[in-house]
Amino acid sequence: MTPRPAAPLKLGMVGGGEGAFIGAVHRIASRIDGEFTLVAGALSSSPDRARASGAALGLDPARVYADFTAMADAEAARDDGIDAVAIVTPNHVHLAPALAFLERGINVICDKPLTGTLDEAHTLAVAAEASDALFVLTHNYSGYAMVRQARAMVAAGALGTVRVVNVEYPQGWLAAPVEAEGNQQAAWRTDPAKSGAGGAIGDIGTHALQLATFVTGEAPARIAADLTAFVPGRRLDDNAHVMLRYASGAKGLIWASQVAVGCENALRLRVYGDAGGLEWCQETPDVLLFTPHGEPTRRLTRGGPGTEATASLSRIPAGHPEGYLEGFANLYRDAARAIRARKAGEPMPEDLLLPTVRDGLLGVTFVDACVRSSAADAAWIAL
Amino acid sequence: MTPRPAAPLKLGMVGGGEGAFIGAVHRIASRIDGEFTLVAGALSSSPDRARASGAALGLDPARVYADFTAMADAEAARDDGIDAVAIVTPNHVHLAPALAFLERGINVICDKPLTGTLDEAHTLAVAAEASDALFVLTHNYSGYAMVRQARAMVAAGALGTVRVVNVEYPQGWLAAPVEAEGNQQAAWRTDPAKSGAGGAIGDIGTHALQLATFVTGEAPARIAADLTAFVPGRRLDDNAHVMLRYASGAKGLIWASQVAVGCENALRLRVYGDAGGLEWCQETPDVLLFTPHGEPTRRLTRGGPGTEATASLSRIPAGHPEGYLEGFANLYRDAARAIRARKAGEPMPEDLLLPTVRDGLLGVTFVDACVRSSAADAAWIAL
Amino acid sequence: MTPRPAAPLKLGMVGGGEGAFIGAVHRIASRIDGEFTLVAGALSSSPDRARASGAALGLDPARVYADFTAMADAEAARDDGIDAVAIVTPNHVHLAPALAFLERGINVICDKPLTGTLDEAHTLAVAAEASDALFVLTHNYSGYAMVRQARAMVAAGALGTVRVVNVEYPQGWLAAPVEAEGNQQAAWRTDPAKSGAGGAIGDIGTHALQLATFVTGEAPARIAADLTAFVPGRRLDDNAHVMLRYASGAKGLIWASQVAVGCENALRLRVYGDAGGLEWCQETPDVLLFTPHGEPTRRLTRGGPGTEATASLSRIPAGHPEGYLEGFANLYRDAARAIRARKAGEPMPEDLLLPTVRDGLLGVTFVDACVRSSAADAAWIAL
Amino acid sequence: MTPRPAAPLKLGMVGGGEGAFIGAVHRIASRIDGEFTLVAGALSSSPDRARASGAALGLDPARVYADFTAMADAEAARDDGIDAVAIVTPNHVHLAPALAFLERGINVICDKPLTGTLDEAHTLAVAAEASDALFVLTHNYSGYAMVRQARAMVAAGALGTVRVVNVEYPQGWLAAPVEAEGNQQAAWRTDPAKSGAGGAIGDIGTHALQLATFVTGEAPARIAADLTAFVPGRRLDDNAHVMLRYASGAKGLIWASQVAVGCENALRLRVYGDAGGLEWCQETPDVLLFTPHGEPTRRLTRGGPGTEATASLSRIPAGHPEGYLEGFANLYRDAARAIRARKAGEPMPEDLLLPTVRDGLLGVTFVDACVRSSAADAAWIAL
Repeated sequence: MTPRPAAPLKLGMVGGGEGAFIGAVHRIASRIDGEFTLVAGALSSSPDRARASGAALGLDPARVYADFTAMADAEAARDDGIDAVAIVTPNHVHLAPALAFLERGINVICDKPLTGTLDEAHTLAVAAEASDALFVLTHNYSGYAMVRQARAMVAAGALGTVRVVNVEYPQGWLAAPVEAEGNQQAAWRTDPAKSGAGGAIGDIGTHALQLATFVTGEAPARIAADLTAFVPGRRLDDNAHVMLRYASGAKGLIWASQVAVGCENALRLRVYGDAGGLEWCQETPDVLLFTPHGEPTRRLTRGGPGTEATASLSRIPAGHPEGYLEGFANLYRDAARAIRARKAGEPMPEDLLLPTVRDGLLGVTFVDACVRSSAADAAWIAL
Repeated sequence: MTPRPAAPLKLGMVGGGEGAFIGAVHRIASRIDGEFTLVAGALSSSPDRARASGAALGLDPARVYADFTAMADAEAARDDGIDAVAIVTPNHVHLAPALAFLERGINVICDKPLTGTLDEAHTLAVAAEASDALFVLTHNYSGYAMVRQARAMVAAGALGTVRVVNVEYPQGWLAAPVEAEGNQQAAWRTDPAKSGAGGAIGDIGTHALQLATFVTGEAPARIAADLTAFVPGRRLDDNAHVMLRYASGAKGLIWASQVAVGCENALRLRVYGDAGGLEWCQETPDVLLFTPHGEPTRRLTRGGPGTEATASLSRIPAGHPEGYLEGFANLYRDAARAIRARKAGEPMPEDLLLPTVRDGLLGVTFVDACVRSSAADAAWIAL
Repeated sequence: MTPRPAAPLKLGMVGGGEGAFIGAVHRIASRIDGEFTLVAGALSSSPDRARASGAALGLDPARVYADFTAMADAEAARDDGIDAVAIVTPNHVHLAPALAFLERGINVICDKPLTGTLDEAHTLAVAAEASDALFVLTHNYSGYAMVRQARAMVAAGALGTVRVVNVEYPQGWLAAPVEAEGNQQAAWRTDPAKSGAGGAIGDIGTHALQLATFVTGEAPARIAADLTAFVPGRRLDDNAHVMLRYASGAKGLIWASQVAVGCENALRLRVYGDAGGLEWCQETPDVLLFTPHGEPTRRLTRGGPGTEATASLSRIPAGHPEGYLEGFANLYRDAARAIRARKAGEPMPEDLLLPTVRDGLLGVTFVDACVRSSAADAAWIAL
Repeated sequence: MTPRPAAPLKLGMVGGGEGAFIGAVHRIASRIDGEFTLVAGALSSSPDRARASGAALGLDPARVYADFTAMADAEAARDDGIDAVAIVTPNHVHLAPALAFLERGINVICDKPLTGTLDEAHTLAVAAEASDALFVLTHNYSGYAMVRQARAMVAAGALGTVRVVNVEYPQGWLAAPVEAEGNQQAAWRTDPAKSGAGGAIGDIGTHALQLATFVTGEAPARIAADLTAFVPGRRLDDNAHVMLRYASGAKGLIWASQVAVGCENALRLRVYGDAGGLEWCQETPDVLLFTPHGEPTRRLTRGGPGTEATASLSRIPAGHPEGYLEGFANLYRDAARAIRARKAGEPMPEDLLLPTVRDGLLGVTFVDACVRSSAADAAWIAL
């Protein structure tokens, strides 16, 4: 049993009221390991919905706020104020709350992508790096144990020099114009005012990029993108083809789609070097295929032989699957470690692998570059 | 957002101290949906370990008990006493604490198998059914959404008349005598004094039986078993072959093994009727294969098309995998619904599918029958 | 390029006329490697069909015979008579033609199971072993490269001492009474007069047994079987559950079914020893999973790294799948080597792994034992 | 039994001597269905090797030729001359023999890509279309039954309007500079003088393109390519990233790689339309996944329910895998039908789906465009 200090950390939430998807995910992820307890929220921009959502979640009504500024003020003033806030609003409402909490020294755990626009992203990056408070971006796929395993293996040279990076993230849920049929998740994701300039490329393409960058340790230097909005009337891309060039000489491909009928969340990463190859799929996240050059493929499993380096990320034995929520919770567990270190005035743990505002800035830069590249007939754009 | 009453239920735990596996699982499962909060425990029979474990879990020292009787007494006497106790000790320490809490009217959530011996199982069954308190047995695999989906489909006639039931549960972790090398999980599981007369047949064979019974709605009438202890020096079976006959005329096979090198927790259920077939594997629990007779196989996924009946068991969209802990948490969520109904003096929810002491009695009866059958050269024994 | 003598061997065929399945398979398998050319046949017991079939196959009308005795006489008398005969009739018409050709010194390649009855099997075994001519039984699954690889690995000790053998062969094509609806393949297979006493156990259970025996090098000593005819009106079993005990102490299970809706030819073998485990599935025959104890699973592929021992069985590189016909052809290629050695008066090649009349006798003995065991409430019967 | 005329067609071969890979494939594919018999060859440019290879194949020494011109002359002059010639030489030796045989009215079955250069391809296209003789290009993947099934489904509207086409063909066998270590297959494929300007893009990228075009019925209008030679000293690309734009508005991606360690021949096609999605993988060619929009994925299998349209391409029942050689043989079977129709002066069968010189010209045009695009920083090039 891993010793755990008596008191969970206190979490607040901005967004995540009724009908939201990712807010519920953050709440579960934050409590799986008992590290956080939700105590405050500005859960909706609609006061009625905010109140109802707070009640449904069992929050103290005094800590259910009508807006995030009021929440930041009040919580900063409390002796028992929140240790961190989770920002789980649509993209265009990331910057303002993040600034509000950072300015008051409250740690921020923010959903991705970082912001809806590149200007906002730069503003937030400057603010986050100037702040003493922590800023964590929940690129949750990098929390999966076998993704960490993959990163460790690449770093240890198991693949040799990386040559080819192939990431795909096909979904099919936006193959029809469901945003016009009352699907709230679809509505904001396909609305440039809320999502920014990227559709699929922002929503899931940034995940693909971050996953590849996290595992290989290198971001692409240039990209060439062909974005398409296939569904009639849709204003943002729902399919993205992107070619990647790395400064190291590696090449890559990203395919992100929301019109791939039959796909759910089939995020898949493949990396090939001169000494080996790796393959990982999000829908079976406990498995990592590894082929040393000239040898048979090995099937590595979370908690199984050869994955000792990531043992601390396993809650249960190999063959009892952990999933999306546990991967997400790994980020919250790391965040808790960082927050506790900060509270204690200790240095950050050296093995932290939390996505930062830099990852977020890279992601928004990538979206911006893809949109510009696509508008310029897939010209190469430097990141 | 599903409305949730403000206060989580208060949970106590017997067993589950340092080094335990299943206790940690219960703790996570109980808090994933915010339904329970752990407030008390008799976590170890060693007072020092009990104390240390309680501290590590952040329990109020006043509610960290040296033994379960003291805990039952004290918690029953408190106004804010626990709403339920989770019993997560080895099999031979299920009966006594269960009786202690049931007698005091405290709801019991007990790990499987029900008890180490058939006599104990009968005693507990009588007590549980005589008590007003709830008794839940955590045959967690029946909590998986797609297992519930399978059950619903069989009940709705999608398979027609069931003919063949095939369940296998191969593991490889006991292929060597690790019980002699300090593996605590292995030590008690291979010790007749702690596990009872069944080894693999008790530890995982009972899961296989319960899964098949849960999905088909019918328990076997007779079994013929061939149990083997392959590892030198091992006193309990580590491999079990069991043939099943059902009153309906269906036939079945159970294979449970802990010496199947390369297998982790590869529990798999296949059911065939005259109108269709089903296949489900625990290691990819979000997928259910369904073949209507004469048509192509369909791949049903949790949250995907055709699984609307089990939508309430999904926390996240299709393609974002839920795993073992979420399946386990589904039992805790159902238990919470039942406990809240009892507290409110309301009738039990009609759609509850919680494993009961009857399932537990069936399981121990099955283990006993398999041991006797095997001793009698695989003679048929009625359940 | 493997040198090949100029002239293909001359093949005759008994059975295999219009509407037959396995006859066409033998013809393709015999010519894939250019080792045989079909020159004669007694293709049907109906003279008209025999003639029409011979013409359709382009045979010289002088070598299209009305019955197998006439064929045996005539071919034995020709200078350019056949080098071997393929017997591809239903089970009850294996013995007589086999004897006719063996008596005339003509090599026999016979489909399985050996015969419809145990008496016939003994008669044929005596005759085959007394004859100078070769007798090959086409248990074709043992011709797959990765099955040979598995056998070689077990023999080399990669699994250590074998403990558990699990073979299953589920099919779904007889889930409805198609024998009553004009399906000719179903009709003879479900007719005791043509198939013998075994239904699924004879048709596919013998394959399962032979596969396990071939790979492990050991046949079971005793069996206990529960056979069922699920489809109303069916006279032979369409589902078989069999427990196995080996003299070495190993245990096993065979499940053979023709009512497993959704299964096609899902023959699967798993073998576990104290040092490793193996898994092979007929529907993806180029893949063999191998797990050394305590290490990750390896995915071995035909022609890939680590399969050098079976390189001669690969016609094309790894990743270009070979299938059923190539596996079958491996038997014909081996048969050709044996026949050429006999013609040349040379000793048999030492590495031949052809199934013999002994495998056939074992199979029919197994069917007989299963039928008797099942009739005796699954009593143990020695093989 | 499908009636087959008495005499197989007579086949000659150019190339395919000792050490060749694809020659042996053509020989097997041509004889699997008994449609062709090899009677003549110019098997090597080395007279000694030609002679030895002819002897090893059992050819009449009088029909073993020192060069293809001599062979074309002699065979054209014989009454029993060959019905078709298979050209299986490296790319730079396709044009000359093809012209030699076409000019003499002899049908040509030519391996892909069509030629090494675009000029040669145009020359051959003109010649082939001017000739009465047939010209078949063995893009063998389009011979797989389930690829034909996919094409039929797309044509019938099962996907609606096609939006996204994703083809990948990763191999790993050229991850190291094996061309410098005596690997003959690698040597000519990485030599511009023999392969032409394309490496991976020519060898396997053309297969990917043809597969996508065959199934969707539409060729891309423009491409943008990024080709790389990763292995030090290699003169041709060993990895290709290509973005596709179709006149219809569809978009696509091709990834072809020979440095993807761990991949064998993992050709995979995915096509998505507004009404459904399809997925097919060459390494499990009997399976086609089909998802109608809003419904669960179906697993279609060769010979299984829902594939009646392609029944004539199945030799054996579903679940008994057919593989690469059978897919290749389907082309030879179609070629035989076409050749017999031509011989008989009958019109071509209406359902023929043989790749023609047009497919070949498209392929070489594609390679040329990719090379030019890559040289121009991945500029878009019209096909």
